[in-house]
Amino acid sequence: MPDTIQNEGLLDRALRRVSTLWRDMAERVTGPEAEGADLAARMRDCLAGRGGEVSARARAAGLAQAYVAADAQGRRAFLRTLAAFDSDAEAVARAADALTAAGDAEARAGAKVKLRRALEPPRLRLLTQFTTIPDGMKFLVDLRAELLHMAQGDGMLGALEADMKGLLANWFDVGFLELRRIDWSSPAALLERLVDYEAVHRIRTWRDLKNRLDSDRRCYAFFHPRMPEEPLIFVEVALVQGLAESVQRLLDQKAPVLDPGMADTAVFYSINNCQRGLDGIAFGNFLIKRVVDVLSAELRGLKNFATLSPIPGFCRWLAERENAADDQLLTEPEAAALRKVAGVPLATHGTAALSLLMARRGWPKDQGLAAALEPVLVRLCARYLVAEGGRNPKRARDPVTHFHLSNGARVERINWLGDVSAKGMRESAGLMVNYLYDPAKIEDQHEAYAGEGKRASAPAVRKLLKG
Amino acid sequence: MPDTIQNEGLLDRALRRVSTLWRDMAERVTGPEAEGADLAARMRDCLAGRGGEVSARARAAGLAQAYVAADAQGRRAFLRTLAAFDSDAEAVARAADALTAAGDAEARAGAKVKLRRALEPPRLRLLTQFTTIPDGMKFLVDLRAELLHMAQGDGMLGALEADMKGLLANWFDVGFLELRRIDWSSPAALLERLVDYEAVHRIRTWRDLKNRLDSDRRCYAFFHPRMPEEPLIFVEVALVQGLAESVQRLLDQKAPVLDPGMADTAVFYSINNCQRGLDGIAFGNFLIKRVVDVLSAELRGLKNFATLSPIPGFCRWLAERENAADDQLLTEPEAAALRKVAGVPLATHGTAALSLLMARRGWPKDQGLAAALEPVLVRLCARYLVAEGGRNPKRARDPVTHFHLSNGARVERINWLGDVSAKGMRESAGLMVNYLYDPAKIEDQHEAYAGEGKRASAPAVRKLLKG
Amino acid sequence: MPDTIQNEGLLDRALRRVSTLWRDMAERVTGPEAEGADLAARMRDCLAGRGGEVSARARAAGLAQAYVAADAQGRRAFLRTLAAFDSDAEAVARAADALTAAGDAEARAGAKVKLRRALEPPRLRLLTQFTTIPDGMKFLVDLRAELLHMAQGDGMLGALEADMKGLLANWFDVGFLELRRIDWSSPAALLERLVDYEAVHRIRTWRDLKNRLDSDRRCYAFFHPRMPEEPLIFVEVALVQGLAESVQRLLDQKAPVLDPGMADTAVFYSINNCQRGLDGIAFGNFLIKRVVDVLSAELRGLKNFATLSPIPGFCRWLAERENAADDQLLTEPEAAALRKVAGVPLATHGTAALSLLMARRGWPKDQGLAAALEPVLVRLCARYLVAEGGRNPKRARDPVTHFHLSNGARVERINWLGDVSAKGMRESAGLMVNYLYDPAKIEDQHEAYAGEGKRASAPAVRKLLKG
Amino acid sequence: MPDTIQNEGLLDRALRRVSTLWRDMAERVTGPEAEGADLAARMRDCLAGRGGEVSARARAAGLAQAYVAADAQGRRAFLRTLAAFDSDAEAVARAADALTAAGDAEARAGAKVKLRRALEPPRLRLLTQFTTIPDGMKFLVDLRAELLHMAQGDGMLGALEADMKGLLANWFDVGFLELRRIDWSSPAALLERLVDYEAVHRIRTWRDLKNRLDSDRRCYAFFHPRMPEEPLIFVEVALVQGLAESVQRLLDQKAPVLDPGMADTAVFYSINNCQRGLDGIAFGNFLIKRVVDVLSAELRGLKNFATLSPIPGFCRWLAERENAADDQLLTEPEAAALRKVAGVPLATHGTAALSLLMARRGWPKDQGLAAALEPVLVRLCARYLVAEGGRNPKRARDPVTHFHLSNGARVERINWLGDVSAKGMRESAGLMVNYLYDPAKIEDQHEAYAGEGKRASAPAVRKLLKG
Repeated sequence: MPDTIQNEGLLDRALRRVSTLWRDMAERVTGPEAEGADLAARMRDCLAGRGGEVSARARAAGLAQAYVAADAQGRRAFLRTLAAFDSDAEAVARAADALTAAGDAEARAGAKVKLRRALEPPRLRLLTQFTTIPDGMKFLVDLRAELLHMAQGDGMLGALEADMKGLLANWFDVGFLELRRIDWSSPAALLERLVDYEAVHRIRTWRDLKNRLDSDRRCYAFFHPRMPEEPLIFVEVALVQGLAESVQRLLDQKAPVLDPGMADTAVFYSINNCQRGLDGIAFGNFLIKRVVDVLSAELRGLKNFATLSPIPGFCRWLAERENAADDQLLTEPEAAALRKVAGVPLATHGTAALSLLMARRGWPKDQGLAAALEPVLVRLCARYLVAEGGRNPKRARDPVTHFHLSNGARVERINWLGDVSAKGMRESAGLMVNYLYDPAKIEDQHEAYAGEGKRASAPAVRKLLKG
Repeated sequence: MPDTIQNEGLLDRALRRVSTLWRDMAERVTGPEAEGADLAARMRDCLAGRGGEVSARARAAGLAQAYVAADAQGRRAFLRTLAAFDSDAEAVARAADALTAAGDAEARAGAKVKLRRALEPPRLRLLTQFTTIPDGMKFLVDLRAELLHMAQGDGMLGALEADMKGLLANWFDVGFLELRRIDWSSPAALLERLVDYEAVHRIRTWRDLKNRLDSDRRCYAFFHPRMPEEPLIFVEVALVQGLAESVQRLLDQKAPVLDPGMADTAVFYSINNCQRGLDGIAFGNFLIKRVVDVLSAELRGLKNFATLSPIPGFCRWLAERENAADDQLLTEPEAAALRKVAGVPLATHGTAALSLLMARRGWPKDQGLAAALEPVLVRLCARYLVAEGGRNPKRARDPVTHFHLSNGARVERINWLGDVSAKGMRESAGLMVNYLYDPAKIEDQHEAYAGEGKRASAPAVRKLLKG
Repeated sequence: MPDTIQNEGLLDRALRRVSTLWRDMAERVTGPEAEGADLAARMRDCLAGRGGEVSARARAAGLAQAYVAADAQGRRAFLRTLAAFDSDAEAVARAADALTAAGDAEARAGAKVKLRRALEPPRLRLLTQFTTIPDGMKFLVDLRAELLHMAQGDGMLGALEADMKGLLANWFDVGFLELRRIDWSSPAALLERLVDYEAVHRIRTWRDLKNRLDSDRRCYAFFHPRMPEEPLIFVEVALVQGLAESVQRLLDQKAPVLDPGMADTAVFYSINNCQRGLDGIAFGNFLIKRVVDVLSAELRGLKNFATLSPIPGFCRWLAERENAADDQLLTEPEAAALRKVAGVPLATHGTAALSLLMARRGWPKDQGLAAALEPVLVRLCARYLVAEGGRNPKRARDPVTHFHLSNGARVERINWLGDVSAKGMRESAGLMVNYLYDPAKIEDQHEAYAGEGKRASAPAVRKLLKG
Repeated sequence: MPDTIQNEGLLDRALRRVSTLWRDMAERVTGPEAEGADLAARMRDCLAGRGGEVSARARAAGLAQAYVAADAQGRRAFLRTLAAFDSDAEAVARAADALTAAGDAEARAGAKVKLRRALEPPRLRLLTQFTTIPDGMKFLVDLRAELLHMAQGDGMLGALEADMKGLLANWFDVGFLELRRIDWSSPAALLERLVDYEAVHRIRTWRDLKNRLDSDRRCYAFFHPRMPEEPLIFVEVALVQGLAESVQRLLDQKAPVLDPGMADTAVFYSINNCQRGLDGIAFGNFLIKRVVDVLSAELRGLKNFATLSPIPGFCRWLAERENAADDQLLTEPEAAALRKVAGVPLATHGTAALSLLMARRGWPKDQGLAAALEPVLVRLCARYLVAEGGRNPKRARDPVTHFHLSNGARVERINWLGDVSAKGMRESAGLMVNYLYDPAKIEDQHEAYAGEGKRASAPAVRKLLKG
């Protein structure tokens, strides 16, 4: 999409825009000379509320500006200085002792409250003060995005990052979010952000985007009241008849438009988290279920809610298995068939034959090859999705699978040649999965997976497992 | 104001309205039978996120409904059950030990983070879940209002109350609030709330209210995005020429309306906190200063920003002094003059003569009496405001005085017969004060008061002190 | 309702508010001296677009201001001056001749266009220019209200009034109007206008108003985009079970509130036109049918849509009949029964006995009397509604009846003691009618009434006619 | 701009969208069979208000649908059928006679009103009924666009077109329009329309569009409340320092962005009428002046308001003069100089040499050539703008010049190589003009031009005339 500006970081772009505002705000109290002052002293002024809390917050704007203006090293220094405003060790020790000494339940409850209070690091106050400045919330979210990166191997910054995550988790609780529909009447500035944030199936042109917002499509996002122009997460939905099996067909700009009233199925074909600074704060589960509610109410004809999802870890897993020389990956008849098609000696490792074949460019268009590969890959995919575990064997190995099973969905269908884009071929061997959200079963399936690691799947998928 | 419904508590009214919504929400997951279930078990389900977080939050709606339906005793039981979901004592002890054992700063930083996490009581999660239900934020605020009352002398509830305060302070940080102007075009439902919440100078009729929202009046309030119809705090402002000296004149419905462009002074004559459940979370300072900014930008003719404030503790202080038989309260000439007017023996205690005179009904209309009382009461009031301390001698004895001095204002003028309402006479002997907000001096005056307890006042007020 | 300002005319109030705006606008082009200039010259400048059309419209503001500032005589002079800007007599004569001379249909069509153009009076342009000034549309509407009054017997003003009606009919075509729901969250300023405009069943207090906007009530109004705060017409609806029979019971503030989902009937109990300046431009028919649509969509339980209407001409008609000494109004048995109850000689005229009885204060509470009167009055009312004609015998004599029959409704039921207010007793002998709007029959009933004057009524009502 | 849909007419696109809505609306009253009915009969039903006005308007939806579904021939038939609902010839004749016979002014005034009423063609009513259907106003505007085309040489359709113009002029009076700013936060659907409608300087890509909406750019449009998503006219403005001289430089996407607070000049560089169906109804004058007001209020640093305008008729005029073999177009020294540069015999006609030179591709880059042409073309352009007349010698020959002079602007500067696009070279020989809007002189300049045809111009331009 040649029309999109991508030559500067999102953080910098946003910050530059409000920088003038902050300067104005800061100068009202501090005067320009204050900018030269010692960073720690300026932070101390904010924390002490010098000149009253209103002034302190104006000063915070000056600090935000200093941060934005700094280079990488300066920013690290800023954050370490901030991290040093930690709770008072002695006060903590005293409060911990008091808790140990507390006699009964009532006393312990009170002592705990006091210990928690003693542990609250003063730096939290400055972080909170940033909320008052224009676009301050976006500043904080982007600050955490940087911090997540910088904190690796830095215990002080790690503690600061933990504080920020705590604050943001509080402020971005789903109870505060607004679900909004996005369509072709939405602000261009917002649509441009969708283009930037869409990572699952890239939006290539404005026409591609418009097609995704047509009358048989839906797009919904969560927003925070203090970041009203920034989507937090969004989902793209296609209203179709029957489960969709190919993302290329869904995104085909020449496909006819379906009267939404005729659709029986809503297919969630792309879900994107937009704010790296909110990593670890979960919205996806809520988003899907809220959208299911909204669509059910609007379109009475809808009977099924399902995804059309990539399998990002499938080929990586296959490769690992090949390296592991695990001949049991293929059945003997499968191995034989592949060897034959591949034209390699009988002695060749079955899995090696598989990867040899998959490495051939354009194999999906070679009908004989594709016919030989299909049963093998589909079966292996079913196994990967439903049976393979990771470090935690109770957890699905694929992160997308884990996400949907955790939400209470089930593995419904595997689609051969569902995504023949370069990325789709590279990561998923062209396969895609439908996960089905059946409102009546979501709770039980969630519990079974969360508790015993039991993965829900359609009979047809389970049948594949048996080969 | 006969037209206002005041026959039921605000909490109950709000809750009844959403109760049906909650029932619907709760029934989707729990079924009606769940309502009979053990309260603790239901809370445990919420905290464990049984059936997934979406379901857990629907269950929270059922719990909210159970709370609302309960009587006082049931509500206390509910809250004590909730309070019992406290942090795990052993995990806390372990984390505290780890902190003690931590070697260097980095290790300590990490250990503190872990100790804070260990101390987080699970009950916080349920409180957060309530935010998702309709009007859930108002539910939480009103819950704390009740809890503030119930927690007295109950350590467990006290700890729960501390949790709630922490959460609410986070969510209601001024960075999240919206300043809105309220006028005669505001929703009647909102105006009705103003009537309910105005406690300084009661609104008696809709015509009284309309007069307070006329073109030479302003009213501003802070709102939270999740409680959009509930003002948190509001201020009423009169645009006038010169400092206003009498609240009765300000509220006179027959007074001519001033062209706002002609006003040189904005008088803040009533500030009201609306939500008892937000006690201890401060907005007033921000509100006044934001309104000063807004008005300055809109009306270039405004030169002064001041309050016309009651002195709620003045008469109580006088009475205490009388009981203390502190003859030094009056100067000898003052005492003599009052004795004479009062027609009492010379031996009568000066302060006694004062209170004797003030007890006479309608004394403000007795010219001789009023003339004798004025210099004495005004001087004493200046002393009360500027010199008297409470338990903390650095802090102004009057709470209103303390509030404005903390904000960086100064005691500007004492107004004789500024409020001749029954309440005004009873509490303030009819006196009112103007506190002046001079943007150029706010910071320094705040610092001087916050640091050394130095109270800013106009020369004329200081002169009164010297008698 | 003591809280409502009613001591100044609506026109004056609105105009005073915008007068300053107009002055500012006007002074930009004309300078204050222009105000003294000859009125006709100033109008000529506007019509000629002197200084360009933008300036001309600014000048129009000055003229509007002059009008508002004038007394009754000045206003008449203003309007007569304006009326004199009529079409050019010679040009009209020429165009009329050209039409007479036109040969074929094409030529005639063109000639008519030219004649219409020649007839267009220049004054229309100034009226249109007023639309540009703030609140200009309300100014025009109120201007016509005054003109309707002044034009009686004044042919020049009559022609001006006809122009205005034409313009306003164009601008206020129902295609431009917005239907909005009004409830307790509507602006107080708007609600205050409802109070002013409600003439059928006066709103007495804000509590009365709030009760009419409760959850089992609805209020809808039409608005024009250029008069967004002024309702044009509004209707009040009660959601009930079964046809409502008493307006006092509907308006009872202590009556329990019905869950709207349980209602099977929507009762339109008050319809009010708000703008006298729009007399003769009809909205009521559209309003009722749009509201029927809106309510049907929202509340699936609604099965019947009906009014509860006054019969404003009933008692007047009775009195006329009495004067007409038309003994056939009562049947002989009715007359006998009434004479007996009235205790008057047998010779007394039957209708006289009726009016004698009705003149007794508090007769509805005298059970015997009421029992005697009920069958007689109800029968006569049925006759009045369904059989009596006015000057045009095909048209229902009662204006309210005519309105609803024209809309395609039918006379459904007559309610004994449906409105026992002073006005209800005086005008309708306490009776009220339900008119039923059955969507399936509206078209046919409208046609039958509009064409042959056939009045639709329920069998029970027709039965009454036969006595 | 590859991303823009331009493969279907605007009318058809809009109509297809609402067609389903209309069908639903129409079917409620007429039933599908009605569609087959005779067109004239259906129109008669609408005009007669059969089944009541609400039903009649629903029927109108059916007629709109029939129109949309028809081909060119069917549409013409439709419109001629409609046009035939003309005023009654006899009634007109009677009313014209009555006017002739009218005795005094009062009687004449009344007779004129009656004649106007008699002349009102019934077809107006159906046109008005269309306003009620969804997107009905856009339907009417597009209908007139088609009609303007079809009515050429068809007297009946011409009369219908005149009716439509009258109605639309009433409804689209500037008093009803809303000025809105358009920026990058505007709906994408609206921005897409800008792209479609911009005809002066084509928008080539979304990036080009975004650049035109950057912080040192402004775009304003008029909208009608009943066509809220359709701009009627829009203007693009650049905030710059000094008068802009080159449109390519203005539209350069790599040019640095100016802080709007630093701009001293607002340059209106593109004005576009969007609705062909509103031809002859003028908004441009109002738009420019409203935008001048808005910008003046927002940006205090702005001192000059000017356009950067094309000269669409300049080259055509030059060509006509050449054909006219008017040697006096060039002075003798000019002719000699050009002959020399062109390398043609001395005998060659001066103007021929000019056009010979201008026909050389890429001449602006040939420095010698350009230097020779500049003084000649600039002088001729000044003459064309300020001295040349058309059929009406008091009116500027160039339509753009006429527009701005009528608005009260003056010819301020001629810019050499101001527009070197293909279109700019072809139409204007690369020249552009600045017209200056000086609020203090607009009225007088307008009057002088409107009255005596006097064209305002800067001294430097007048000096050019003298050569």
